[in-house]
Amino acid sequence: MCEANAYLLQDDREELIMEGVDVLEPQGDQIYLRSIFGEQKFLHARLKTTSLLEHKILLETTTSD
Amino acid sequence: MCEANAYLLQDDREELIMEGVDVLEPQGDQIYLRSIFGEQKFLHARLKTTSLLEHKILLETTTSD
Repeated sequence: MCEANAYLLQDDREELIMEGVDVLEPQGDQIYLRSIFGEQKFLHARLKTTSLLEHKILLETTTSD
Repeated sequence: MCEANAYLLQDDREELIMEGVDVLEPQGDQIYLRSIFGEQKFLHARLKTTSLLEHKILLETTTSD
């Protein structure tokens, strides 16, 4: 399985938002996530970085700017 | 191996830009890509969508807006 886990960076902490992310899609100032389990989320966030080898997607909130 | 391949959407065609992408990081109006092979690229592009299960990252150019 080659999905990744999504974390949201908040106050210098990384909070696990979704496991098994398949789809990651920016939509305006939000980001849409869908997991292999069918879970879906819209977050007021943007992609900060990924390390796919570590199965990691790091997001940061857009509202704190 | 859980890396993905990055494609750039141009004129409705998907051009393979980099294989084995590990790091995907937006930087201003550019996007930084680094592969498991050590290859690095900066593109005037943004993330359109991913399907990690299909090992696919789809980018779109930012200059055509």
